[in-house]
Amino acid sequence: MSVTAAKGFTAAGIAAGIKENGNPDLALVVNEGPRRAAAGVFTANRVKAAPVVWSEQVLKGGEVSAVVLNSGGANACTGPRGFQDTHATAERVAEVLGHSAAEVAVASTGLIGTLLPMDKLLPGVGRAAAELSAHGGEKAAIAIKTTDTVHKTAVVTGGTAGTAGADGGAAWTVGGMAKGAGMLAPGLATMLVVLTTDADVPAAELDAALRAATRTTFDRVDSDGAMSTNDTVLLLASGASGVRPEPAEFAEAVRAVCDDLGRQLVADAEGASKEIKVEVVNAAGEDDAVEVGRSIARNNLLKCAIHGEDPNWGRVLAAIGTTSAAFEPDRLNVAINGVWVCKNGSFGEDRDLVDMRYRQVHIVADLAAGEAGAVVWTNDLTADYVHENSAYSS
Amino acid sequence: MSVTAAKGFTAAGIAAGIKENGNPDLALVVNEGPRRAAAGVFTANRVKAAPVVWSEQVLKGGEVSAVVLNSGGANACTGPRGFQDTHATAERVAEVLGHSAAEVAVASTGLIGTLLPMDKLLPGVGRAAAELSAHGGEKAAIAIKTTDTVHKTAVVTGGTAGTAGADGGAAWTVGGMAKGAGMLAPGLATMLVVLTTDADVPAAELDAALRAATRTTFDRVDSDGAMSTNDTVLLLASGASGVRPEPAEFAEAVRAVCDDLGRQLVADAEGASKEIKVEVVNAAGEDDAVEVGRSIARNNLLKCAIHGEDPNWGRVLAAIGTTSAAFEPDRLNVAINGVWVCKNGSFGEDRDLVDMRYRQVHIVADLAAGEAGAVVWTNDLTADYVHENSAYSS
Repeated sequence: MSVTAAKGFTAAGIAAGIKENGNPDLALVVNEGPRRAAAGVFTANRVKAAPVVWSEQVLKGGEVSAVVLNSGGANACTGPRGFQDTHATAERVAEVLGHSAAEVAVASTGLIGTLLPMDKLLPGVGRAAAELSAHGGEKAAIAIKTTDTVHKTAVVTGGTAGTAGADGGAAWTVGGMAKGAGMLAPGLATMLVVLTTDADVPAAELDAALRAATRTTFDRVDSDGAMSTNDTVLLLASGASGVRPEPAEFAEAVRAVCDDLGRQLVADAEGASKEIKVEVVNAAGEDDAVEVGRSIARNNLLKCAIHGEDPNWGRVLAAIGTTSAAFEPDRLNVAINGVWVCKNGSFGEDRDLVDMRYRQVHIVADLAAGEAGAVVWTNDLTADYVHENSAYSS
Repeated sequence: MSVTAAKGFTAAGIAAGIKENGNPDLALVVNEGPRRAAAGVFTANRVKAAPVVWSEQVLKGGEVSAVVLNSGGANACTGPRGFQDTHATAERVAEVLGHSAAEVAVASTGLIGTLLPMDKLLPGVGRAAAELSAHGGEKAAIAIKTTDTVHKTAVVTGGTAGTAGADGGAAWTVGGMAKGAGMLAPGLATMLVVLTTDADVPAAELDAALRAATRTTFDRVDSDGAMSTNDTVLLLASGASGVRPEPAEFAEAVRAVCDDLGRQLVADAEGASKEIKVEVVNAAGEDDAVEVGRSIARNNLLKCAIHGEDPNWGRVLAAIGTTSAAFEPDRLNVAINGVWVCKNGSFGEDRDLVDMRYRQVHIVADLAAGEAGAVVWTNDLTADYVHENSAYSS
């Protein structure tokens, strides 16, 4: 599972002492080749953490031989000293592994605005390298957790129909790990994601597949409307399977892994008691559908209502009404958990028919304006979310 | 005080039985003349409640002789029947007062998506008319409350320097009442506001003064980022003082009353424990300053941190970074309660110096990009907000 499900990768996760509580906090993922093609997608936030600035440069070369990730500190808003620390981390990884630092991506997550304890992080790199293993994916996934209650991994196998590999198993594999539980919003979420594949895919095709996948998965997870400074999604290809898949099939596998991991982020969102699927249908275009979906997903009043198991469709309409999407107010329809509580912009079926007892909530917003659609995932707003985020840095 | 502070107005507030708990829920404000000029500003939400659609038409005529307001039901998303109910309410007021329904504005607030109990509302109109009084302003302000814990009124007097009226008092007065405690966000908030003045001001000048005032007051109150379907701000002029003030002086009085009422809305926001003044300085333009101010004011993670008395400036930078405003990340500065915790995009003065114990919190975001600025008011995000809004319609 995780980043070592695909052949040609080793990984490790250790406690370097960055977190004061002694939990694992440093992960290393190494591409053992034969290829080292890579692609990356990063936060759209204009205030970018030092490791994001560094890794964006690394990815421009299209090759990554190793990724070092730490939890326990975001290294964001830390000035020139923070960037020097990221650089030194990459150099240490390069030195230990015998690679070039220009092929070492760095990712960090945790509190913004504090320097990393480099006296603990740098020795940790050597210890992590000593533990690198083709079975280390789970430990790496555990080491990047912050407020996550569980670690997140996913795997999809491809090419099993007729083109099975020499070992009789999957011809090629895409696997990955993710962390993220708060500050989840488009562009991307506070998420660190590393995907690996043993398919033989050049960097440009990896890039196209990754951008297409994140656009409809991680970019449509909107837990709390807050965009992070550190979001990083990387895709590394070792080519170790010797198989070059059909581009469409490969892209679908990447999308499926991203979708799986994105759903796990929603399921583990800070303090959430509901997972809300906001489905917009019959929109004039996909952009309209996404705009409406996000507006609904970000409406604090609606998110509170869902928490209270109140099918308050009026708040859905109020959220739709703030968008620039094409629609006529008196043609809007809304279903909550299968009951069309709003028809033609007014009350529809009896709201008492809506069963809100379960963790999964499905809201359908019918714009009656076209044939496009989109799904955005979000969570309810809870007192636990407030508690967790008012105490995080204290 | 309230809407009867200015000469030429009567008002009443009664319990018509719209609210099941028997609290006051119907208010009537009557302009006794001699003039009946009026202006109005309404929600920017495209899903508009029936009374908003009605009152927008009324205001196009530039004259309003009476305003009828109810709490206990928003009459929003109620279809053609809801609009008929608003129309019938205006007709009843016109009949009782001997005016034309085309000069009767209607405003409603409460739960979206349910019809009003017209069998209680219509008889209530007659009872309210029987109680109209030049001292009825407070009762009217009380009758429009929903989750408000206190009623809100404000008065400013003008023209006292040299042009005092015949009774030796203020030459002219602007007074008003407001309700609103949740769904407070630009465009406007879930607010109903009625302002009255005895100044002799034509409709076009009232309109200009009201739009200028709301743009920098109610439009910059962003309690929870949720825009209502019912927002209505009306300004009625009786001309009873016989004084026609200087336009600039009159506009400033209207702005001052709006600012006072807007501050009262923030102070009474649902579940809030902090009033947060977000001040953006050194922006390239006012639009940039407002965009940045709103982004900070809407960041749930920051609002939770403020609730926890945590001067988490990293979340301020993360919010600024999502905007399109002109700035360089490494030139941003942030002060919280007077301590410059962020300098040049990195950590500045010791965050432990920030005293967060008090209800008032002042965040200054220095964009170092120009000379413009703006202030946006918001609140913290609390477990009480979640509780109040998850239980509201149940």
